[in-house]
Amino acid sequence: MSHENCIFCKIAAGQIPGKRVFEDDQLIVIHDINPAAKLHLLVIPKRHIETLADCLPENPADQALLGRMLALAPNLAREQGHGYADGAGGFRVVINTGPDGGQEVYHLHMHVLAGPRPWKRMG
Amino acid sequence: MSHENCIFCKIAAGQIPGKRVFEDDQLIVIHDINPAAKLHLLVIPKRHIETLADCLPENPADQALLGRMLALAPNLAREQGHGYADGAGGFRVVINTGPDGGQEVYHLHMHVLAGPRPWKRMG
Repeated sequence: MSHENCIFCKIAAGQIPGKRVFEDDQLIVIHDINPAAKLHLLVIPKRHIETLADCLPENPADQALLGRMLALAPNLAREQGHGYADGAGGFRVVINTGPDGGQEVYHLHMHVLAGPRPWKRMG
Repeated sequence: MSHENCIFCKIAAGQIPGKRVFEDDQLIVIHDINPAAKLHLLVIPKRHIETLADCLPENPADQALLGRMLALAPNLAREQGHGYADGAGGFRVVINTGPDGGQEVYHLHMHVLAGPRPWKRMG
């Protein structure tokens, strides 16, 4: 299921090092090597899926995987000192799809960002 | 399950108008009234959930709902002329959690953004 020249497949397989903060059978979570915020994690499925647009609503496995990725984010942020509780703190999750969405690596990944925000308001 | 003073609960209930582009038993999708991009949709669960941090990984219903929200995004973007296909086009999805994440309405919602990007690169 991995693609030969995919950097995230190589990280998932342990062929390239990454600063892992979480791993289970389906996902790995690493620190972004070029962080855009004080906290910048990447939640990456081990299975090679190019983009969010390749996850089909009619595919229960894809949908379950996406749900797990999002549901994991609050705990990851909390463990890194950026949880949301009692009306304070917080974080942002982002998935970029395609060139117009700003996607840079074509292996699905979700950004978890927190800390002081140079990141522009997005509504 | 709705909260009396929640604007998204009122929109979901039809008490306040919204430019709906999708609705099913669990979700509504509307155009953001103050768009931050050419395309700016909000995917909103009908059930009142304050934040992503209130969705528990151990709650299968929450996780399934989150998976549905994400899996819906590619079709929504495509229908609005911003789909990703054959290496072109694309869109971004964002969920803000808590004040440090930029959350403004405390009823869970996912932004779907596309079009020319004033929105800053986020990794």
